[in-house]
Amino acid sequence: MPKGTVTILGLGAMGSAIAARLRETGYATTVWNRTAAKTEPHVQAGATAVATIAEAVQTGDIILAVLLDHKSIHDNLEPAAAELKGKILVNITTTTPNEARATAAWAAEHGITYLDGAIMAVPEMIGRPGSRLLYSGDENAFAIAKPALETLGTAEYQGTDAGLASLKDMALLSAMYQTFGGLLQAVAMMRTVGTPAAQTAEDVINWLTAVLPVMESLAPLIDERNYDPAPGQDVAFTRPAVASIITASREQGVSADFLEPLKKHLDELAATGRGTADWISVVEQLTIK
Amino acid sequence: MPKGTVTILGLGAMGSAIAARLRETGYATTVWNRTAAKTEPHVQAGATAVATIAEAVQTGDIILAVLLDHKSIHDNLEPAAAELKGKILVNITTTTPNEARATAAWAAEHGITYLDGAIMAVPEMIGRPGSRLLYSGDENAFAIAKPALETLGTAEYQGTDAGLASLKDMALLSAMYQTFGGLLQAVAMMRTVGTPAAQTAEDVINWLTAVLPVMESLAPLIDERNYDPAPGQDVAFTRPAVASIITASREQGVSADFLEPLKKHLDELAATGRGTADWISVVEQLTIK
Ligand SMILES: NC(=O)c1ccc[n+]([C@@H]2O[C@H](COP(=O)([O-])OP(=O)(O)OC[C@H]3O[C@@H](n4cnc5c(N)ncnc54)[C@H](OP(=O)(O)O)[C@@H]3O)[C@@H](O)[C@H]2O)c1
Ligand SMILES: NC(=O)c1ccc[n+]([C@@H]2O[C@H](COP(=O)([O-])OP(=O)(O)OC[C@H]3O[C@@H](n4cnc5c(N)ncnc54)[C@H](OP(=O)(O)O)[C@@H]3O)[C@@H](O)[C@H]2O)c1
Repeated sequence: MPKGTVTILGLGAMGSAIAARLRETGYATTVWNRTAAKTEPHVQAGATAVATIAEAVQTGDIILAVLLDHKSIHDNLEPAAAELKGKILVNITTTTPNEARATAAWAAEHGITYLDGAIMAVPEMIGRPGSRLLYSGDENAFAIAKPALETLGTAEYQGTDAGLASLKDMALLSAMYQTFGGLLQAVAMMRTVGTPAAQTAEDVINWLTAVLPVMESLAPLIDERNYDPAPGQDVAFTRPAVASIITASREQGVSADFLEPLKKHLDELAATGRGTADWISVVEQLTIK
Repeated sequence: MPKGTVTILGLGAMGSAIAARLRETGYATTVWNRTAAKTEPHVQAGATAVATIAEAVQTGDIILAVLLDHKSIHDNLEPAAAELKGKILVNITTTTPNEARATAAWAAEHGITYLDGAIMAVPEMIGRPGSRLLYSGDENAFAIAKPALETLGTAEYQGTDAGLASLKDMALLSAMYQTFGGLLQAVAMMRTVGTPAAQTAEDVINWLTAVLPVMESLAPLIDERNYDPAPGQDVAFTRPAVASIITASREQGVSADFLEPLKKHLDELAATGRGTADWISVVEQLTIK
């Protein structure tokens, strides 16, 4: 029993993995790629390749765009707006939330049903455990596309604001890069006394696994703005602690630049009489006034 | 059967928890605190309080110092150097590695057997599961003090360089603060669309738990300096990704300062022709030339 046709625009590492997975789970695929040669292995695996986006969007029920960035999406899709009219466009290209919102507005203007997406996986993970994709925008489009999207990984709908999937993606990636930055600094520090990176990575992972639940218990304090007096460690304690870490790192010949922005926020809190407040009130400093 | 006497210098939050735990597990305690009033509850619980450090160190087999910082240790212990001679001094006050090394050198000059320590726990955790203390310095002192130290939490000996315990402590705390910084930024970003901190904390914890093992698989590449071509994500991919996160955060009115140092390192790698290298080669940029 055929499941319908999905058009995939873009056959980079991610688009290729997605097209292969859709076929594997019983979908017909129509593929388009700027560099046409990349469609060949897909055609051999049963895909229909077309030369223009206008053609591509006409043959699919769902149009899945996986190009490089926001600009490549608009450069390529705007000329095909007429053909996209009435179609479901699922754009899982990485963009910022405001870019996603702009694409949603453009789609609405042209009668295109728009769902934005963010991929929290690498190509090798597509269709495998741990693969997770976030979506936001038209709720009905999500309901229709869901069976196909769920073949790629967990499909999590975030809400009608098209920027939400991207925002959550960016927020989680931000946390990830900062965590990995911390790990790299720990590795650099411990390497100065001969500890291999593999050992430090194991130590840091165990340590973070032990302390992460603390943040879960502190988060409600943020929701209640319950900072002062500090339910946890206060600014007066944390500020010299962070300064000591910076000193220790530099004494070993390792940059402590990653910690400077936190130090700056703690200094600001101390300088404005909030030494008794919980250090996690730094979160309030992050809102740009 | 008496287990011997431990002298605790400093009855702040941490020293008090330690003194109580040692008594609970059968040790006699001698206590000293700058503000003498804080010794009272300890005396009621069976401790011997003394008025001077010179007296305090004479009555204990092991001298455990838990003061505020390096300066308070030296201001108080230097005048008692003669009485400390031949004793085991375990200093678990938080200091930098170089401060620990300086104290070890001072102790050696005065015939004091020195063990440095770092407490990876809050006072409430002392003697309970998850409490962990790191030690470095005199190996024999560690062997002798170990039964008493193990009542406080896991006792991990790091090596003879007195700075090692503190260095590892600082490296792990550095990773923790950066991880928590990332979490605070994610909370601030998601709050702009009404997501409670409690929800974001849960999402971030789940996400980090999923991605942390990746770092364990990348660490051997650091040990082998195996960066180019990138076994993982390269600089050319990661640099615009981090730039997008910064843009997304600022678009929502949230500071992205925490990510600026990483962006700077990625820019440097790109500018020096290392776009095809793995982004984790940033670790090499952290070594101060
Ligand atoms: N790879 C990952 O791990 C990962 C993870 C999460 C999200 N993503 C996102 O998924 C999207 C695709 O990533 P990828 O890994 O597949 O990247 P990729 O391997 O570099 O492929 C990029 C794709 O975009 C096309 N493209 C680039 N510029 C174009 C333009 N101006 N006009 C038309 N097509 C253009 C390329 O076509 P050509 O073949 O003609 O160059 C290719 O199909 C990106 O937004 C990326 O951020 C990727
Ligand atoms: N609390 C934690 O969660 C934690 C975790 C890990 C490590 N640590 C470390 O453990 C050590 C003690 O922390 P704490 O939480 O017990 O701090 P605290 O509650 O602030 O107590 C500080 C102690 O140091 C004494 N002190 C301060 N300055 C002194 C000076 N100049 N001369 C003599 N005594 C002085 C205080 O005496 P007075 O009573 O006379 O003021 C008090 O006994 C610190 O190095 C801290 O970084 C603490």
